[in-house]
Amino acid sequence: MQKISKLPKFVTAQEGSPPLMKDIFSLLNECAYAKGGEVSARAHAKTLADMYLRLDKKDRKSFLQVLSFEYSPDYARLAEAFTKYSVAADIQSRCNAEIALRTVMYSPRKRILTQFNAIPAGIKFLVDLRAELLDFMKELPELNVLDSELKDCLASWFDVGFLDLVRLTWNSPAAVLEKLIKYEAVHKVASWRNLKKRLDEGDRRCYAFFHPKMPVEPLIFVNVVLTDKLEDNIQNLLDENTPSNDASQATTAIFYSISNCQYGLRGISFGNFLLKRVIDSMSRDFPKIKNFATLSPIPGLIKWMENNPEELTGACYPSDWKYLAKAGVTSPQSPIFRDIVKNPQKYFDNTELITALKTPLIRTAAKFLTTLHADGRPIDFVARFHLGNGARVEKLNWMADNSPKGVSQSLGLMVNYLYDISKLEKNIEKFTVEGKISASSAIKEMTERVSDSK
Amino acid sequence: MQKISKLPKFVTAQEGSPPLMKDIFSLLNECAYAKGGEVSARAHAKTLADMYLRLDKKDRKSFLQVLSFEYSPDYARLAEAFTKYSVAADIQSRCNAEIALRTVMYSPRKRILTQFNAIPAGIKFLVDLRAELLDFMKELPELNVLDSELKDCLASWFDVGFLDLVRLTWNSPAAVLEKLIKYEAVHKVASWRNLKKRLDEGDRRCYAFFHPKMPVEPLIFVNVVLTDKLEDNIQNLLDENTPSNDASQATTAIFYSISNCQYGLRGISFGNFLLKRVIDSMSRDFPKIKNFATLSPIPGLIKWMENNPEELTGACYPSDWKYLAKAGVTSPQSPIFRDIVKNPQKYFDNTELITALKTPLIRTAAKFLTTLHADGRPIDFVARFHLGNGARVEKLNWMADNSPKGVSQSLGLMVNYLYDISKLEKNIEKFTVEGKISASSAIKEMTERVSDSK
Amino acid sequence: MQKISKLPKFVTAQEGSPPLMKDIFSLLNECAYAKGGEVSARAHAKTLADMYLRLDKKDRKSFLQVLSFEYSPDYARLAEAFTKYSVAADIQSRCNAEIALRTVMYSPRKRILTQFNAIPAGIKFLVDLRAELLDFMKELPELNVLDSELKDCLASWFDVGFLDLVRLTWNSPAAVLEKLIKYEAVHKVASWRNLKKRLDEGDRRCYAFFHPKMPVEPLIFVNVVLTDKLEDNIQNLLDENTPSNDASQATTAIFYSISNCQYGLRGISFGNFLLKRVIDSMSRDFPKIKNFATLSPIPGLIKWMENNPEELTGACYPSDWKYLAKAGVTSPQSPIFRDIVKNPQKYFDNTELITALKTPLIRTAAKFLTTLHADGRPIDFVARFHLGNGARVEKLNWMADNSPKGVSQSLGLMVNYLYDISKLEKNIEKFTVEGKISASSAIKEMTERVSDSK
Amino acid sequence: MQKISKLPKFVTAQEGSPPLMKDIFSLLNECAYAKGGEVSARAHAKTLADMYLRLDKKDRKSFLQVLSFEYSPDYARLAEAFTKYSVAADIQSRCNAEIALRTVMYSPRKRILTQFNAIPAGIKFLVDLRAELLDFMKELPELNVLDSELKDCLASWFDVGFLDLVRLTWNSPAAVLEKLIKYEAVHKVASWRNLKKRLDEGDRRCYAFFHPKMPVEPLIFVNVVLTDKLEDNIQNLLDENTPSNDASQATTAIFYSISNCQYGLRGISFGNFLLKRVIDSMSRDFPKIKNFATLSPIPGLIKWMENNPEELTGACYPSDWKYLAKAGVTSPQSPIFRDIVKNPQKYFDNTELITALKTPLIRTAAKFLTTLHADGRPIDFVARFHLGNGARVEKLNWMADNSPKGVSQSLGLMVNYLYDISKLEKNIEKFTVEGKISASSAIKEMTERVSDSK
Repeated sequence: MQKISKLPKFVTAQEGSPPLMKDIFSLLNECAYAKGGEVSARAHAKTLADMYLRLDKKDRKSFLQVLSFEYSPDYARLAEAFTKYSVAADIQSRCNAEIALRTVMYSPRKRILTQFNAIPAGIKFLVDLRAELLDFMKELPELNVLDSELKDCLASWFDVGFLDLVRLTWNSPAAVLEKLIKYEAVHKVASWRNLKKRLDEGDRRCYAFFHPKMPVEPLIFVNVVLTDKLEDNIQNLLDENTPSNDASQATTAIFYSISNCQYGLRGISFGNFLLKRVIDSMSRDFPKIKNFATLSPIPGLIKWMENNPEELTGACYPSDWKYLAKAGVTSPQSPIFRDIVKNPQKYFDNTELITALKTPLIRTAAKFLTTLHADGRPIDFVARFHLGNGARVEKLNWMADNSPKGVSQSLGLMVNYLYDISKLEKNIEKFTVEGKISASSAIKEMTERVSDSK
Repeated sequence: MQKISKLPKFVTAQEGSPPLMKDIFSLLNECAYAKGGEVSARAHAKTLADMYLRLDKKDRKSFLQVLSFEYSPDYARLAEAFTKYSVAADIQSRCNAEIALRTVMYSPRKRILTQFNAIPAGIKFLVDLRAELLDFMKELPELNVLDSELKDCLASWFDVGFLDLVRLTWNSPAAVLEKLIKYEAVHKVASWRNLKKRLDEGDRRCYAFFHPKMPVEPLIFVNVVLTDKLEDNIQNLLDENTPSNDASQATTAIFYSISNCQYGLRGISFGNFLLKRVIDSMSRDFPKIKNFATLSPIPGLIKWMENNPEELTGACYPSDWKYLAKAGVTSPQSPIFRDIVKNPQKYFDNTELITALKTPLIRTAAKFLTTLHADGRPIDFVARFHLGNGARVEKLNWMADNSPKGVSQSLGLMVNYLYDISKLEKNIEKFTVEGKISASSAIKEMTERVSDSK
Repeated sequence: MQKISKLPKFVTAQEGSPPLMKDIFSLLNECAYAKGGEVSARAHAKTLADMYLRLDKKDRKSFLQVLSFEYSPDYARLAEAFTKYSVAADIQSRCNAEIALRTVMYSPRKRILTQFNAIPAGIKFLVDLRAELLDFMKELPELNVLDSELKDCLASWFDVGFLDLVRLTWNSPAAVLEKLIKYEAVHKVASWRNLKKRLDEGDRRCYAFFHPKMPVEPLIFVNVVLTDKLEDNIQNLLDENTPSNDASQATTAIFYSISNCQYGLRGISFGNFLLKRVIDSMSRDFPKIKNFATLSPIPGLIKWMENNPEELTGACYPSDWKYLAKAGVTSPQSPIFRDIVKNPQKYFDNTELITALKTPLIRTAAKFLTTLHADGRPIDFVARFHLGNGARVEKLNWMADNSPKGVSQSLGLMVNYLYDISKLEKNIEKFTVEGKISASSAIKEMTERVSDSK
Repeated sequence: MQKISKLPKFVTAQEGSPPLMKDIFSLLNECAYAKGGEVSARAHAKTLADMYLRLDKKDRKSFLQVLSFEYSPDYARLAEAFTKYSVAADIQSRCNAEIALRTVMYSPRKRILTQFNAIPAGIKFLVDLRAELLDFMKELPELNVLDSELKDCLASWFDVGFLDLVRLTWNSPAAVLEKLIKYEAVHKVASWRNLKKRLDEGDRRCYAFFHPKMPVEPLIFVNVVLTDKLEDNIQNLLDENTPSNDASQATTAIFYSISNCQYGLRGISFGNFLLKRVIDSMSRDFPKIKNFATLSPIPGLIKWMENNPEELTGACYPSDWKYLAKAGVTSPQSPIFRDIVKNPQKYFDNTELITALKTPLIRTAAKFLTTLHADGRPIDFVARFHLGNGARVEKLNWMADNSPKGVSQSLGLMVNYLYDISKLEKNIEKFTVEGKISASSAIKEMTERVSDSK
């Protein structure tokens, strides 16, 4: 790869002479080529990381550009290795050539990244470095080559085989629980008291994945309630005053919040494994539990309805118009209805109207959840996750999340995805191979009737 | 890569129909391409691993051949990716092309190997798999392509940054201590009582590296004695009746045994890092300790002397002949001396003779330890390790290991390598760049005088 | 002991027939006499404890009366044993008699109390039982005989030798840290954020004693700040925005809050041992720390001043009247001054006046802290604790606690008690034997001058 | 109590002047009366303990005599307190008097013993002190007064409520497992390899009680095998080559060895609680297990037979004489038979004879196990333990322990005691109240028929 024509100057870290830039290059070389031995290279990596943390944003970008383009694989050696590989005549030379090719592909920049690993908190440093890199890529898309290699490293080091499944309770370290408050992405934790409710050993469980070298940093966590039905209201679950269920009688485990914690691990999937292991663990602990399901938001619903106003229109059957008329909406052509289909959330507080719209809205949501995007995947990203894991769309819940966020995303609708262990693998195959979305018969029926009525 | 022309038949695992071979292929495909999702792929990996463990040796070889050659990178896609990379005109397309090339190089076999990671004890399965693979390679050298990829994986997963330094004591789990007995490679542990001596908290320390997912399997360990001198006799150190030194007064830490435990991790170096971290840890705990050194065997000495009989001859100075004569060896040409230089160990029990040979033998050993092999590295593999870490040859010890092994390897001679923290990096550079071996002035003098006398 | 004339009826726990009272007696008997074996007795104790927890307050009192008076030592056997003891003629019979006497004194009620020990959380049950008992004693002072025996048991089981010194940090279980908020008795913890400041690993330390069988219940804890001076302002220490000191440079450790947590352990002292062990532990960790001291409230000052108005009067020297006059207080006889000496806190917000009173008030406080109560102990209970531990009154701090509580207790004054390890034992002896309070020369001088001036 | 007339002189610990005896008294006083405060008293206790450990046996005896007789309760105060107690007219004065009496009974020697608690390893020091004391009592029986008070302390501190039930496995610390070898009292552990078999996680379990402050010292432990029948051969269980049972299919748990570890805790019973908690724990882990039983030695059998030769005679029924005659024993009057009944073990290797004696011997053993000693308890101490716990004599096993010890104790016979959880309490009551021993109908029948035949 061509070297970058003009080397950057590092400004922030220069405190005296000799110029720091020289130092950074010298340290990068020590890390990449380890002339003084592997042990010393790791010590230099520590110095380099400390230096990086003292750089300002601009200089960090320069640093990553240098790392990316000055320490790429050697083109000449790569070309030579590929040629040998192409012409290899027998198995043994082919094997040797493949090994040689792989050796050349192992870039100096990867060696440098690896050196950071052994410094204290080094793995967290790399995760945070990638988080920064992902931000810089918006402006400098060519950094993707570094990101790709760093992501490969992280994917290898954060392989699910190395992660620890940890049950978090009110007895867990405060420093860890504080992270749950920070990273909760679905339903904000208002206070430590509210957090305590979510960790109530009566009927709640919370599980997280941890990397052995990042002991106070959860990677992903899920909140579960042990209950005896498909829960249909999130505020009720989050309310500190809701009494606990009797876990020993529970038949159902509801995952009501799943949050990824490390932006720097974007694209490395843990959620599917986390749910699998939590389901396994709970099945052992609570043999009476037969159903595993979620209570999930539908973040993309309103936006999709706004872009596809005909969907709600089509979902209003003759039987619905009776009620709509009573609420003052006489026909599909009335100006108010035309506004409703485009801006349904405006009418959420109109109790009579929203009640009349209940059935059509649920039908529309069912349609939305079972419709594939042009890229062959579900439109809603939450649906994409659960259907990708082999779950099925089970049930839609009216007035299930009346928080401002819930109303603005999905008019308060939430959905249960059902994890039927015996069918996950089949569902995934049907989904990935045939593009078929699994849904309960009730949901299917709704989408069919909507189709019929159009 | 060309597919192997004739697929192997797996015999041992076939217990009924349908034939297992089909199953193995189907499982390998599931692991490589994960059509039913990542979670299921891991479950299939478990089945596959169980199957593998039921195969006999012949079938395991076939399995590894299949894994090696049927799941290699796709040649056509690789050629295409390389072409794109070669012709990339601007930075962005070069970056994209490098990413694409790397993606194609990520072989299905590597994906399969990775799947094993998440099964219980999966990482140990892979380490043992490689141990087996290394054995099979003697017969089937073309398996090196699989070995190379597996070694890369293991090197990444066993990066020193992920390892835990653990101090082992008599309070450690018996299951772990049992492994010390099993893996001790230098000075055999005769009994649990003898092991207890080596873990005596009075003046001994034992440190090991562990991988977080292999909690009862040490990767490498080192035995240390806290003392006030360069120890010069190994039997004394190992004797259960030797009284303990007062650790609080110790000035010197002697590493008297270092053993690698996992054959399947061959070529992945831990020893340098282990010594570095042990030295750091002990420097903190015992600020009075100023010297870190080894008491090491010289396993290659006798063999080298047998091949180079002129070395001992040259090391006998006129002053030595006086004593040799008294012991009945009158001249370099006498038949007995000609036999001595070729088979010195035959004469070990001849006290008078061996005493007369003491100085020449030490000179010869000094020469041996400071002589480079044709490949530019020390001949003795223990010397190679310590000199490669930046230590220097410090002192030779007469009658230091009178065990049968010690006599047969080095006529009872042992050597202290000195780890002078402030000079390790420099020594490594001098060694790797200039090919210079570090040695104490006493050792240097001996080798010079030998040279002079020739 | 006389049986109580009329046995109580237990009302609350009676849910059906047979009457519960019978059950309670039968269970008490099982626990006291263990006819079905020790193992079963413990099981019955569990039932009994569950029953007790279902009783209302009135019935609990009855229960404790029954326990107290129906299960006391047997008077007749006691009298007989004492007689034998009195007349024992030789050593052996005296020994035997003492043993027999002790056996009779071992009351059935103590056997019952001991049985509770083995139920889950039994020890906490007993601690809480005593807390309740202490309350009931206000009304039923004769329960002191039960309290005394229970206290003996608890003193034995909570002997400092069995307690664990635990350093609490932000990494401690939230369930434990929550207790710090609950039990903090000196300076209320306003929020989890404020708690985090007090656990800041930068310059704070928090140590607590735990009993092995009460793992989430601290018995007592102390907050420490590492600093380089005798801290003189508590608000500053508690403020979340106060920057951390550099602990590695600290010369002084200030104990700024000590709280007992278990009311049921009243009269069993831990504080002296806690401070001793914390001082030992910190001396090891921070060899630079030379001074250990407190920043303590003076809770009894205002009350004492109100009762002894002549003290402040006498502490106003001629030099002070200059400033007092400027603040509008012309003479000791002026009505305002007569009011001041009785209600000093009324004038706290009068800046000029309070400033004029600064020196006299400090003198008065010095007098207060070094004056013994009629019972031979310091008047102030905080002083009693620290002086009883061998500390000395070191320094008084003006405007050190301007919280409403601080003003109402001591007009914002706080005091440093100094723990000079080498003198603690001597100070205690001087204090307990001679009734002498240790104080710095500055404090002594103030009290002398106050005396002189009177 | 009378002071001892002549104070002992301590010889061993005297290394210089001033004489150590003075020191010991001064330290004892500090510990008993704590004039310099409780914290210092504990420090003095440490010095005192160190001194004690340096004394020789003779001086230790003197020390314990001093402790026993110079620090007993004050007789005058005791007499006064008892008088007040006797004359107390109302409840409150009675209560106060009882408290006062108890205070006087709390001897200075108990205060001294308690001080040792807080030194490192103090509780172990006291346990070992009592072990020594028990030995000294053989010669100085009057030390029983000290022993009694120390035992009370230990009984309180080692109350089962404070003990931890720990499952020991091959992963337990070697330092702990070493103690299992040392303390195994029933079936000697020949080697670490043999120990490993007894900890085999396949079908073995080993549980122990530990005190929180004696972490590497088990108090008592039990070995269990999971099986599907009443095991009837101990050598088979101990043999390292015996294959493991499948624990998941086990219906029966056999306790095949129980050992007390601390002689200094003699008379404080743990065994009953240990078995109870192990049974609870295993019932939870293995719901299929329905039977809990032992395979126990009968240590007193031979001795009892030797003393009661008529028992075996009576147990030989006419049907047995047929076989005895074939083995050369023609009648009860024959000299050989008269020798057999007195020295049965002499004939163990005479296969024909011993086979002919099988049924009579089993009958005799059944009789032995169900016969009460004059003191109302079973004669055999192992029987005493299990029957006292509520177990019943279930089954006798022929050739069950052919080790020299087994043959010499009980001619190779062993017995299963059955722990039927639902009947333990009843059995204990029947046993303690009515003096009835529980036995299976088979055992009962045997003893009856023996009676009949006489």
